[in-house]
Amino acid sequence: MTRIILLLVETAVELVPQEIRNHPAIQAYCRRRRQDPRWTILDSSYHHAAMKGLNNYQKRGRPDILHFTLLEALGSPLNLAGNLEIYCHTQDEAFIEISPTVRLPRVYDRFKGLLSQLYKEGIIKTDEGEVLLRMERKNMAETISSLKPEKTYLLTEKGRKASREELREIFQKIARPLFMVGCYPHGDFSEETKRLAEDSLSLSDKRLEAWTAVSRLLCIAEE
Amino acid sequence: MTRIILLLVETAVELVPQEIRNHPAIQAYCRRRRQDPRWTILDSSYHHAAMKGLNNYQKRGRPDILHFTLLEALGSPLNLAGNLEIYCHTQDEAFIEISPTVRLPRVYDRFKGLLSQLYKEGIIKTDEGEVLLRMERKNMAETISSLKPEKTYLLTEKGRKASREELREIFQKIARPLFMVGCYPHGDFSEETKRLAEDSLSLSDKRLEAWTAVSRLLCIAEE
Repeated sequence: MTRIILLLVETAVELVPQEIRNHPAIQAYCRRRRQDPRWTILDSSYHHAAMKGLNNYQKRGRPDILHFTLLEALGSPLNLAGNLEIYCHTQDEAFIEISPTVRLPRVYDRFKGLLSQLYKEGIIKTDEGEVLLRMERKNMAETISSLKPEKTYLLTEKGRKASREELREIFQKIARPLFMVGCYPHGDFSEETKRLAEDSLSLSDKRLEAWTAVSRLLCIAEE
Repeated sequence: MTRIILLLVETAVELVPQEIRNHPAIQAYCRRRRQDPRWTILDSSYHHAAMKGLNNYQKRGRPDILHFTLLEALGSPLNLAGNLEIYCHTQDEAFIEISPTVRLPRVYDRFKGLLSQLYKEGIIKTDEGEVLLRMERKNMAETISSLKPEKTYLLTEKGRKASREELREIFQKIARPLFMVGCYPHGDFSEETKRLAEDSLSLSDKRLEAWTAVSRLLCIAEE
């Protein structure tokens, strides 16, 4: 099996921004859950009313997409065989390294709790000291150069349609292919993301959810 | 592309059983969320303490598995192309028909709310009257015979290892193949499920999560 670097990009995860922390919708949400608004993960399903004033708000506050995409990647046969590296870059310029052996909470609220802890402490370890998640401030260009890929690909429905045969060739010929998959709900990739991709590929005529794009990519790599 | 019938079996979804409705853990959970215990979906992440006395409790109360697996199936290219039928049979003998066009809530709590409504009303429709979800009392044997498959397969790590080539042959030769995938956390399939499968296939040496088994099956069917 091939070894693949998966980089989830423009991930719609961030803490509630300071500018809306005092909004009644945020205050009520935090009071009900006994959470500190400074360490609460932005979630458009609950904070929609507060988010309308935010720049680019339709791309933001969807930790559910990251949750499901990570569960998909972590449970893949490719990862179980030790042939996947999983990283995430968020819209607020955080880089997250994900251990291939981390067991994420299945329940969404607990996943958000884990992200909140990660923002606070920068690292999540087991009792034995094994690092499960690590977060650093790093922009996309630094992120990619630190991962040392041989070639970078962006999966996007606007890319060149890639047949399975072509993907198999990439997996055979490229030693460390890095695949970027967008983890946000709506809209186009940023110019920076597009610039950092050496090639743009499409897996389907239709727009796929992030987790579907990931499962299809990995499924072909597992052959 | 092939047409496939996907039947999620022994799905760990049910209402909180009457025998534990008065348990303090259930009462506290329902009070906090202002829910009626009679129409609350059992969830082992929150009701663990109350569930210990239940028969077979380790297989029960995991609606998150159904949630992810349905999102996976509904967003698949096979479904988007109109070539997938999705059904679910639960551990409490309910049969659920899922419209290929339903847009499920992304947020777990709202998905459970939808299931609760389905248990209460038996049907979920759009404002225009289109049926999105329908629930009926039906046992597994009745369920399968009502779906009129040409052949039934059970996906299980204990089955015969099926190569992709063999799956492709099934997709080519069998007009209405029905694939059963278990949607519960631990333990073996029931004797009834095993008896209703004409063939048992394994997609991987390792035990796969339900959503991973589904995505791999559909990925091969989409070729």
